[in-house]
Amino acid sequence: MQRTSFADDACSMGRALSVLGAWWNLLIIREAFAGATRFDQFQKRLGISRNSLTSRLRAMVEAGVLERRPVAANRSREEYVLTPMGEDLWPLIVSLRQWGDRWLFDDQGSPDRLVEAATGRPIPQLEVRSADGRRLERGAVRLVALAPET
Amino acid sequence: MQRTSFADDACSMGRALSVLGAWWNLLIIREAFAGATRFDQFQKRLGISRNSLTSRLRAMVEAGVLERRPVAANRSREEYVLTPMGEDLWPLIVSLRQWGDRWLFDDQGSPDRLVEAATGRPIPQLEVRSADGRRLERGAVRLVALAPET
Repeated sequence: MQRTSFADDACSMGRALSVLGAWWNLLIIREAFAGATRFDQFQKRLGISRNSLTSRLRAMVEAGVLERRPVAANRSREEYVLTPMGEDLWPLIVSLRQWGDRWLFDDQGSPDRLVEAATGRPIPQLEVRSADGRRLERGAVRLVALAPET
Repeated sequence: MQRTSFADDACSMGRALSVLGAWWNLLIIREAFAGATRFDQFQKRLGISRNSLTSRLRAMVEAGVLERRPVAANRSREEYVLTPMGEDLWPLIVSLRQWGDRWLFDDQGSPDRLVEAATGRPIPQLEVRSADGRRLERGAVRLVALAPET
């Protein structure tokens, strides 16, 4: 048996990965968070082929992560913007970047850093917390099956 | 121009995605967090081909996310365990699952949920916060280049 999709997986993480796909898709979302909206902007920033970008943008529009809409100033052109579902990837994007910052650079460290715009202070590591705000390590969390509602 | 790797990308997120690769790798990490250690466990739980699993496990060992070591009770067999670098993916895994929970199920919702083991209370959404604990929306955070140390 070899699966080709987890779109209907019972596990939300499997489904999420099916939508987000390989790393190209998340890099496109990275650029959307960084302000890219136009096809040529994505293409230039990522060095991705136009065919591949076209199909990936289409898939993310179909999945509901991006929305395609006319550019206000020029109705014959289109732009891609994050939907609320896409905007909600923000903690995931930050978490991925923080992990890369910690583990994937040598002594010089990452050349840039996320900071609070108003204060310039670095953003702390995202942490898994309890409902009342205590930090929870992995062993303090478990996955429980929900009983079907009757 | 078309890139094939972001392993040396200046952006930590690009590097992180190069290590984590397509969704198979993250699904393998999901199973490691869920307690899988043996090749056959990963293979059975994911329905991935043995060849593909072999090469993906090897790549993640080389990247430092998993460690291969002899099983204590049977030195001729091996198991795969998360390294500290792999354990540190915990907030990312939770964030990915929470996003799937919110957006990828119909009215019935996800069949399972992350809870605090000691209390049974659901884990709140991960949030990006300031150094002093205020919740920060995307617009309140920016990426700044660090000046090289002189």
